[in-house]
Amino acid sequence: MRGRGEKLEAAVAARELDRMLVTDLTNVRYLTGFTGTNGAVICGPETRLFLTDFRYTERAEAEVAEWETVTISADWLGGIAARLGGRVGFEDDQMSVRMAEKLKEKLAEGTELVAAGGEVEKLRRVKDSEELRAIAEASKLGEEAWRWALERGFLGRSERDVALATEAKIRELGGEPSFPAIVATGPNGALPHAEPGERVIATGELVVFDMGAKLDGYCSDGTRTFAIGEVGEKGREVYDVVLQAQLAALEAITAGRTGEELDTIARELIGEAGYGEAFGHALGHGVGLEVHEGPRLAQKSDDVLAPGEVVTVEPGIYLAGELGVRIEDFVIVREDGFENLSTLSKDLTLVD
Amino acid sequence: MRGRGEKLEAAVAARELDRMLVTDLTNVRYLTGFTGTNGAVICGPETRLFLTDFRYTERAEAEVAEWETVTISADWLGGIAARLGGRVGFEDDQMSVRMAEKLKEKLAEGTELVAAGGEVEKLRRVKDSEELRAIAEASKLGEEAWRWALERGFLGRSERDVALATEAKIRELGGEPSFPAIVATGPNGALPHAEPGERVIATGELVVFDMGAKLDGYCSDGTRTFAIGEVGEKGREVYDVVLQAQLAALEAITAGRTGEELDTIARELIGEAGYGEAFGHALGHGVGLEVHEGPRLAQKSDDVLAPGEVVTVEPGIYLAGELGVRIEDFVIVREDGFENLSTLSKDLTLVD
Repeated sequence: MRGRGEKLEAAVAARELDRMLVTDLTNVRYLTGFTGTNGAVICGPETRLFLTDFRYTERAEAEVAEWETVTISADWLGGIAARLGGRVGFEDDQMSVRMAEKLKEKLAEGTELVAAGGEVEKLRRVKDSEELRAIAEASKLGEEAWRWALERGFLGRSERDVALATEAKIRELGGEPSFPAIVATGPNGALPHAEPGERVIATGELVVFDMGAKLDGYCSDGTRTFAIGEVGEKGREVYDVVLQAQLAALEAITAGRTGEELDTIARELIGEAGYGEAFGHALGHGVGLEVHEGPRLAQKSDDVLAPGEVVTVEPGIYLAGELGVRIEDFVIVREDGFENLSTLSKDLTLVD
Repeated sequence: MRGRGEKLEAAVAARELDRMLVTDLTNVRYLTGFTGTNGAVICGPETRLFLTDFRYTERAEAEVAEWETVTISADWLGGIAARLGGRVGFEDDQMSVRMAEKLKEKLAEGTELVAAGGEVEKLRRVKDSEELRAIAEASKLGEEAWRWALERGFLGRSERDVALATEAKIRELGGEPSFPAIVATGPNGALPHAEPGERVIATGELVVFDMGAKLDGYCSDGTRTFAIGEVGEKGREVYDVVLQAQLAALEAITAGRTGEELDTIARELIGEAGYGEAFGHALGHGVGLEVHEGPRLAQKSDDVLAPGEVVTVEPGIYLAGELGVRIEDFVIVREDGFENLSTLSKDLTLVD
């Protein structure tokens, strides 16, 4: 957690705030390391407070360093309010209207709440070395489960069976799924967020397999599309278009590029092949403590990639009622390129 | 979902509102049956609108009846605002400050947002026959997994192994865990919300096992404390105090009792036995689409039980560094008593 309070303090100063109140638990975890279900942070010049209740005092002692832990016994919002003053930034995109109203009632005169949601999320985009290690470990664990699932085979199993078995393997290896695994075969592959169902995986179908592992709070994310036996000319053509688009966008990943530029590289190649309408989502997104966070690799995204950001690169083509293909790598942005955490082959792999 | 819109309309009228805007997804699901991740409801006299985006139009056709589905293509909040007028109740305990501000900007003149969070949650307390069937099925599935775990045995396994295997069994049976299972052995049992860890279950220990299944959206919840071999006099004494408290509170469950009255019955018995300080949580809570919902069976709860409510009855004694015991049944409140969905024996069961 080293240095994260300092970065937030700088952001607080840049916005001409006296204090920042952080109530989103993922942001609290990012700043302090605290993994419990009730906590808040107050940050400002010479102020590094972590607030929790008696249930978590012990856990905070073990997890939270560099922040002074305050246990609030009875009146949670009153305890927070008593430690605020001046212009106080709060997470308006997270805090409910009711909580904000109740908090305002308890503030001392002259204390003002200022909408400042998203400040910690901005800091979270660039990962430090500790975070990159955790993410690489999560990715490694996810791929181990994936290889296990490939060896176990797909043919004759239901989507649900493959998804559940892979998730169980992730847990056996000490992680958690970072989201419910997607296993979508044949026409189900055309639904980008299909829920694995009872459809049995059969010869001649493409299977979209999207999964990730979470370890020590950090997520991984990746997708491969596998061929079950011979999938026909159309399937191979679509696969090749997606692969070329994925490779082109991937090779362009480097600090300084915008999310829109990268998305456009893949989108134009898919459009030129005549499948422009069939790529109905963004190229990619950041990953960290949450499986979807900044930056956005998408049209209208002016996010500029920075070294240490971790993003997915995942174009797809979805032909309703027919098939779907998505290929997703999971990469670290570097000063002069990228580091690919995904090691599974992207050649069209025939499995059974 | 039959009749739920009518009940909400009555609540809207009672609060002198013209419309109610429902944005909490669990509440939206309760009212309409919709299981996707973006939807809202507008309810009022002759108004039954369900709003979603293009990704979910097809799903809404399959899931939503009795509500008119409106697909909003671009401006989500604008599309909502255009359908509001007069005094509009909104879920102030759920909606973020930012969303409320943006929504206000788009409202027609004369339209007013009124804090009305909790109205749908109040309706959700009493379950209809369709819901009670779903809850009974979830409970049955959970207990099947539980019996399987008991047959498989605990001795020599880690807490984490028992928890993960039971969760996997729930999934194999077609459900989901309604929360991460708690398996806490020996001194870990003294932490009411312990996370299952690497501690191996050994002879002479009490194991607190708290778990539930979710099926078709509805949750179950139950706890048993098992003895691994001979647990000694103290363990048996504490177990017996908790059991007597649990039985006394359980037998008192009937429509018309308040949450505080019921909590007090168990709390006094535990207090008389000298363990008053060691029962550090409430007696129970409602269960439905969420594993924690109303009513509250607790000190200072004036919730009055009504027929069709589904609640837990779960006193416990927690002796730090030593042991913990919790016994939890899962029951339907009836006009003249209760129906117990929990069928596992509450005699101190020796397992290995």
